[in-house]
Amino acid sequence: MTQSSEADSEDPFLPMNTPRVFESVVAEIERAIVMGRLGPGDRLPNERDLASMMQVSRNSVREAMRVLEMFGAVETANGRGRLSGSTIADGAGAGVRTTLRLHTLLNGVPLRDIVEMRVLIESQAAHKAASSATLDDCERLLRMSSDWTTARSAEEANELDTAFHAELARVAGNALAPAMVEGLREAMVRDLLQGFERLADWRTEFARSSAEHVEIVSLIRAGEAEKASEAMRLHCTRLFEVMNQE
Amino acid sequence: MTQSSEADSEDPFLPMNTPRVFESVVAEIERAIVMGRLGPGDRLPNERDLASMMQVSRNSVREAMRVLEMFGAVETANGRGRLSGSTIADGAGAGVRTTLRLHTLLNGVPLRDIVEMRVLIESQAAHKAASSATLDDCERLLRMSSDWTTARSAEEANELDTAFHAELARVAGNALAPAMVEGLREAMVRDLLQGFERLADWRTEFARSSAEHVEIVSLIRAGEAEKASEAMRLHCTRLFEVMNQE
Repeated sequence: MTQSSEADSEDPFLPMNTPRVFESVVAEIERAIVMGRLGPGDRLPNERDLASMMQVSRNSVREAMRVLEMFGAVETANGRGRLSGSTIADGAGAGVRTTLRLHTLLNGVPLRDIVEMRVLIESQAAHKAASSATLDDCERLLRMSSDWTTARSAEEANELDTAFHAELARVAGNALAPAMVEGLREAMVRDLLQGFERLADWRTEFARSSAEHVEIVSLIRAGEAEKASEAMRLHCTRLFEVMNQE
Repeated sequence: MTQSSEADSEDPFLPMNTPRVFESVVAEIERAIVMGRLGPGDRLPNERDLASMMQVSRNSVREAMRVLEMFGAVETANGRGRLSGSTIADGAGAGVRTTLRLHTLLNGVPLRDIVEMRVLIESQAAHKAASSATLDDCERLLRMSSDWTTARSAEEANELDTAFHAELARVAGNALAPAMVEGLREAMVRDLLQGFERLADWRTEFARSSAEHVEIVSLIRAGEAEKASEAMRLHCTRLFEVMNQE
């Protein structure tokens, strides 16, 4: 984009699209993971050693580490010697959440489209869970449905609600689905919380939601794939309608 | 995770989970976007001014800008005075692509699960496009199907292929779908290119793929939602089988 507008200028040369040093450091660490030389839990050399191995400045290494942290690819232990404590993370989806939030925000993605994507992924998850869930899974999901009656705020209740949906996606067995579910929730969290503020009593709404969760889990336990899928679709859609109410 | 293991130590206090300065700068810029004070295309103050406004170090501002760039939330023009040229981006999905690639890599998400997610999102897109696509949309999609007969490498053909799938998702009208489609492609790009290397002739495979695209677009143009959706499902699944061949 920037490139084409700069082509209008009188300069005889266009700026080259070379990656900057911190981007190359990020790419090199990713390559080490791809090649199996680094994996989740492995400790990274400290900033000074990394800079010397890669023959780049410590600033470039620090910038790359910040980027990898925000993507959830690197964890840095808090409260200890900061850069001596960096390890490769297990990719717990922090980056997926942040990036979906920023992307929907900057693109002005309407809530309707986020909900449509949720319905798609979560009704399929409910469908699959009807064959894959064990009795233990169902009991855990039921516990996660009732846990939030003790929530002290809409924010807390919302986190417990998200945890239920992510766990259901986990039980359904697609390794990518839980991060997607969490990311889509993160993308609509502002709308969700604003919606709850407008409600006379958010506890009533969450109680209703919780009852719907129990119904979905019962259908999953009974192996009723189609009905569980449809119940999930209605559950996600109804929440959207509540959000859109005056 | 780190937190609980540190609880075993003999220290009387646990490290606090306070956000670091660069994270607060990222959050503050995101807040300005949420509040409508900053939006796509707006130019950011330079590094020195930002640091002075926020009363943080220039290093913290620089780290935050790198993070926002990698998430695709900020663009910095190349070849000019670097930090004087930062603008809020249109959220073109660069972050979604990077994060899905890193997440699937670190989590060891199997190709099967990525394909399952693609089938879900793209067959729904084909279904919706059968009602939403104009004749112009269909002609553009057909052109995008034949363009790649001139591709000089499997990488280039793969990029043109991805562009077709993202454009189809755009035509279907969910504002979140194109970035998802691109992100899922990015997550499987290594497997794809390795698969093509094993093939005797990647051109033959792409020609077959291109013919399937033409069929999908024809069904969309004819308004055959169910058939277009099923053709897309078969197309994505067949490619997965090709990848998995010896």
